[in-house]
Amino acid sequence: MSRISGFNKNTLTTGPLVRLAARSNALGGPTSGLAPSYLQANLIVLPRRYAHDFRLLCARNPVPCPLLAESAHPGAFDKLKSYIRHDHSSSSHPAAVDIDLRRDAPRYLVYRDGELHAQTQDICAEWQDDDHVGFLIGCSYSFEGALADAGLPPRHVVQDRNVPMYRTDIPLCPSGVFSGGTYVVSMRPYKPEDIEKVREITQRFTTTHGEPIAWGWEAAARLGIQNIASPEWGDAPRQLDGQGEFGEDADEGYIPVFWGCGVTPQEAVMRAELKGTIMGHAPGHMIVLDVQEHQVFGAAT
Amino acid sequence: MSRISGFNKNTLTTGPLVRLAARSNALGGPTSGLAPSYLQANLIVLPRRYAHDFRLLCARNPVPCPLLAESAHPGAFDKLKSYIRHDHSSSSHPAAVDIDLRRDAPRYLVYRDGELHAQTQDICAEWQDDDHVGFLIGCSYSFEGALADAGLPPRHVVQDRNVPMYRTDIPLCPSGVFSGGTYVVSMRPYKPEDIEKVREITQRFTTTHGEPIAWGWEAAARLGIQNIASPEWGDAPRQLDGQGEFGEDADEGYIPVFWGCGVTPQEAVMRAELKGTIMGHAPGHMIVLDVQEHQVFGAAT
Repeated sequence: MSRISGFNKNTLTTGPLVRLAARSNALGGPTSGLAPSYLQANLIVLPRRYAHDFRLLCARNPVPCPLLAESAHPGAFDKLKSYIRHDHSSSSHPAAVDIDLRRDAPRYLVYRDGELHAQTQDICAEWQDDDHVGFLIGCSYSFEGALADAGLPPRHVVQDRNVPMYRTDIPLCPSGVFSGGTYVVSMRPYKPEDIEKVREITQRFTTTHGEPIAWGWEAAARLGIQNIASPEWGDAPRQLDGQGEFGEDADEGYIPVFWGCGVTPQEAVMRAELKGTIMGHAPGHMIVLDVQEHQVFGAAT
Repeated sequence: MSRISGFNKNTLTTGPLVRLAARSNALGGPTSGLAPSYLQANLIVLPRRYAHDFRLLCARNPVPCPLLAESAHPGAFDKLKSYIRHDHSSSSHPAAVDIDLRRDAPRYLVYRDGELHAQTQDICAEWQDDDHVGFLIGCSYSFEGALADAGLPPRHVVQDRNVPMYRTDIPLCPSGVFSGGTYVVSMRPYKPEDIEKVREITQRFTTTHGEPIAWGWEAAARLGIQNIASPEWGDAPRQLDGQGEFGEDADEGYIPVFWGCGVTPQEAVMRAELKGTIMGHAPGHMIVLDVQEHQVFGAAT
């Protein structure tokens, strides 16, 4: 059975349309490439007793854990409090008006007492109306579009692969039960002469990780990344322009560039060994919002 | 000549009174202990071309660089834009209404092209009306009061010494010209059994560094701190309860607890080797605000 039925994938041009498609189970596949320019978000659902610490974890570590919105109150799956702002502006953009956090991701993962319990198309049965709090975290799809527009498409996009992601030794600022966590980073290879341009292009994406946190082979070692060819998540970086492997000795003139990654808060949650039912979107199966990039990040300069 | 003349230091009970005393040059000494419960702030003044990158540096690293307010526009020394909020609340508290950033710190440091140029009681002559942007950064005086109130006064407070501060290897998330910076931390020794209480007490001070970023002797090594007896700033930690030295082998039952420190953004600015005139308050000679702790952080729980 096709993962999309009843309508063409190309018709999913806005955040609300993608969410409706997921809600009706017409869409069960990844959201990459859908509703271009609309913000896509990672979802983490926690029991309310962990919500305060998690909110502060995000506030203390905004680069890897950019909190976009959360349930307006414990149990709320259809009403969000949004933190999406232009820089330090005092007013916030509504993240998504007609939303159901239990059904609007195309696929979910359900954890019970720290163990993966199920993969589902919705979490209506698991959602506890007096207890669960949903958190939406920014993801890097937006700045990848801006890099491509500037003639600097990430290699994995050109190759239609997933971005490689790595655990690092860089500590997160702890928050209550969430201690001992470290940054997870995504990596995109670039030429040294393009680094300043890449930093400049991605700087304005403040709520979707912003500019890189580190770049170069020395930085990889400093982050504690032992082997660039073996990412913990995503696909291994492979060839560059079809000319060979990517690696420190490959001498292709590309160096690794590292960004904060939205897998970080998921890792922190897993590490905290929380009790009860924790849920999230399945990797790549994001919740797409009403907000468009230009509304949040402005135009390229 | 006394550093305070014309009135008694005990009369400086509010932020506005401390600022007026500094403005009139009646107060030229440190602000520690003045206007209890009023927020005190670090000052950094930069040419406008660096303001955007610095603002983002703070936004990306809020634990060591908590930005409280800044000049309402380039050149503004008497009008601030405030970022002081209750958690994620949308409205902000005015930081200080009747303020003159050029005169309201009791003492200033002036740097030219990266070199210390002068120590002054005001920076009226150096302030450029079309160019300088002042930034106010939170400091840890507030949470020290809360720790003392809970029967856990920091050792350096009891001993009437300065808190020890250390450079670490923990990288800041870079922002434009501000790259290569690392966390500076302050350290207060506590007993292992008090750590969770200390974390809990300081957690709510979200805009003045919040809860510790690390604790224990292993953490000291992980942060890259070679010798706890030799801080880069402040006074060396000395005796604990008069029973001996503080150190890994001293076996006094105290371990080091580390917080993000407001010296971090100053270090990042110095490291960036900026051109032009950079200014700041002299250490300990802070700008005291109109805002009281309970207005920002709420009551102890």
